[in-house]
Amino acid sequence: MDAISVIRTKRDRGELSPEQIDWIVDAYTRGEVADEQMSALAMAILLNGMNRTEIARWTAAMIASGERMSFDGLSRPTTDKHSTGGVGDKITLPLAPLVAACGAAVPQLSGRGLGHTGGTLDKLESIPGWRALLSNAEMLDVLDTTGAVICAAGDQLAPADKKLYALRDVTGTVEAIPLIASSIMSKKIAEGTGALVLDVKTGSGAFMKTIEDARELASTMVALGTDSGVRTVALLTDMSTPLGLTAGNALEVRESVEVLAGGGPRDVRDLTLALAREMLDAAGLKDADPEKALDDGSAMDVWRRMISAQGGDPDAALPVAREQHVVTAPASGVLTRLDAYDVGVAAWRLGAGRARKEDPVQAGAGVELHAKPGDTVTEGQPLLTLHTDTPEKFEYALKALPGAYDVAPAGTPFTPTPVVRERIA
Amino acid sequence: MDAISVIRTKRDRGELSPEQIDWIVDAYTRGEVADEQMSALAMAILLNGMNRTEIARWTAAMIASGERMSFDGLSRPTTDKHSTGGVGDKITLPLAPLVAACGAAVPQLSGRGLGHTGGTLDKLESIPGWRALLSNAEMLDVLDTTGAVICAAGDQLAPADKKLYALRDVTGTVEAIPLIASSIMSKKIAEGTGALVLDVKTGSGAFMKTIEDARELASTMVALGTDSGVRTVALLTDMSTPLGLTAGNALEVRESVEVLAGGGPRDVRDLTLALAREMLDAAGLKDADPEKALDDGSAMDVWRRMISAQGGDPDAALPVAREQHVVTAPASGVLTRLDAYDVGVAAWRLGAGRARKEDPVQAGAGVELHAKPGDTVTEGQPLLTLHTDTPEKFEYALKALPGAYDVAPAGTPFTPTPVVRERIA
Repeated sequence: MDAISVIRTKRDRGELSPEQIDWIVDAYTRGEVADEQMSALAMAILLNGMNRTEIARWTAAMIASGERMSFDGLSRPTTDKHSTGGVGDKITLPLAPLVAACGAAVPQLSGRGLGHTGGTLDKLESIPGWRALLSNAEMLDVLDTTGAVICAAGDQLAPADKKLYALRDVTGTVEAIPLIASSIMSKKIAEGTGALVLDVKTGSGAFMKTIEDARELASTMVALGTDSGVRTVALLTDMSTPLGLTAGNALEVRESVEVLAGGGPRDVRDLTLALAREMLDAAGLKDADPEKALDDGSAMDVWRRMISAQGGDPDAALPVAREQHVVTAPASGVLTRLDAYDVGVAAWRLGAGRARKEDPVQAGAGVELHAKPGDTVTEGQPLLTLHTDTPEKFEYALKALPGAYDVAPAGTPFTPTPVVRERIA
Repeated sequence: MDAISVIRTKRDRGELSPEQIDWIVDAYTRGEVADEQMSALAMAILLNGMNRTEIARWTAAMIASGERMSFDGLSRPTTDKHSTGGVGDKITLPLAPLVAACGAAVPQLSGRGLGHTGGTLDKLESIPGWRALLSNAEMLDVLDTTGAVICAAGDQLAPADKKLYALRDVTGTVEAIPLIASSIMSKKIAEGTGALVLDVKTGSGAFMKTIEDARELASTMVALGTDSGVRTVALLTDMSTPLGLTAGNALEVRESVEVLAGGGPRDVRDLTLALAREMLDAAGLKDADPEKALDDGSAMDVWRRMISAQGGDPDAALPVAREQHVVTAPASGVLTRLDAYDVGVAAWRLGAGRARKEDPVQAGAGVELHAKPGDTVTEGQPLLTLHTDTPEKFEYALKALPGAYDVAPAGTPFTPTPVVRERIA
């Protein structure tokens, strides 16, 4: 077995054999196959695809590169969620404690943001004292005592994926659906969850710009999960406009706490409840009532215990950026579009996100929205507030925004896009 | 400008801009673009192609990565040949002195073999004392005093190509026609020859297995040369069976000397003359008579002077392998096929070629042919003699040969393939 023959097979539109896949994933993890060989293969996979059998084997090989976890010792059924990432996508924050409050265990291994989409861990780290890095024993303890844990995935889970993801990131090969699907699912299957709900986003602010690509990715992942004995469901959800009224770190924590208090923006509450129902259903808890758990404070109780258990102070004041800049509505009328990607890029440039993995993020930076598509606006009213500790970044952030919104004359008909667009099971 | 955006452009079937091409070739040569990024781009180029404008710019960028040579000080017109490589392809050895004997200057910068095709320098190094590595001054001196020089290309000629070729070799991206064409032509144009004849081989033992691919490569290179002011012609020649009766190093030198003495196998003499006529014609020496120069010993005189000028002894006995093994004809009848690739692999396994760039080769190793397609053979007569210093390799070499030849009943019609199949100018 050698790398060149494996690359040639895929380059020439052949099907990789199970032996070829097992060998190359293992040899790459061990360093026997070089980065330049794996990136050539990744490009061939991106352009020539993999079939369902190949993707399943590739995923299994990535799982086999590391440890598998087990939650068999827990008294509650486990259920997890994965989002492909978007702008203002703080859903994990209210969702994990909410589902725990309804009787499931939620082991939420999360990541950091890169590019225009935010990362769950970056958001939670804006809470004073909160720690993302837990040992396996700590993680199980938080999960067992509070019902939910949100923390960084350990290095021992699918190390092949970690190495391959870093490579794809610098070689223009991130956008390969077979590799995206196997990357996500290898970690979720290795993690050992019993049920999994996938939030596959589509629209300008999403990774998958079209509903067709989102559907293909969702179907591929649902098949992978199901074949591995994980009850898996996917919702295709809208990411053409930011979720809620904030994009940033502390800004999104504040909004999440509003939702846990029974309030918050409609779309965030609706999507949180839709995903909670799917997670509980997949975990076999069909009688749970997540709406009640949001409104009676039981979800908030779990949140407070979960944050405290990881060193955070749920009552501490959240960081606020030192400088603000307000963008006003250019005309009176109906806001018909507020682009998720452009808002995400602005938030990123303000310091909410990072350009390189090793960069720090600003806890207070981001964009606050004062109107959403469908709302009536008046010329000169605040439309967006930009937040940053480094005001020299305003100019660069503002460059992302001239084409970010459309205001149409009052009375122009507006049809809202539903948050949940399709369900794939 | 960054590597990922260049990779994405080609990945998404776009046209690379002149600025993108100039930047990435230069940045890769300087080490700013990493190997894993360039290999992903090479795979995207292999699968999505480049148009004529892109290939011309890529070639120019590779030339610009190093020095350009000039032969303006010579009194004779320069003319060069490049072969895409084959089995038993010793043509450069008789051809360079032959064309010099007819009045042109032949600066033949050559390479070493890798894989089943032999390398011109490896063959000449079987001559005791002969040196492939010359300084620029030495090279010009040999060229000026003898009319021909065959030596290794210096590191200063298209260094981008050298680095890229080594990368393609280990990443399954050798077979990209735009990259093959620009690799060959960047060196030939930088070398500064006035005229160039390309011997593009097609058939089992060639790099281009089909005549269509060979035609595409030849047309691409002829266009590149012509656009750069080099008079360029290509012959598409047959490589379905080995050229001549030997594949190896010293074995092929011996056969080349036979051709220079006015004898030698018909196909080697014919192809040498066909290429000589094209080279002389492209150099403007339309009245030259290469057939006469072979038969009257003037080509042999140049050969002897050229070998001596590079430290070789033209009268020294050539190395002979320590062990021989004879493969006999399995039946009586007509030999209808003797496969170039299989013979090339056998010669390589016997020690005539190398698996890695740093491996040594055996001077005496190789395969000697006792019959060619169209010849009548008798059951049990010698068909091939295998030569090696390491007899433990016979078994491995023999494994390449069971499917290498077909013997049909006597009287079976046989249509020979002409050596020169097409001409592209």
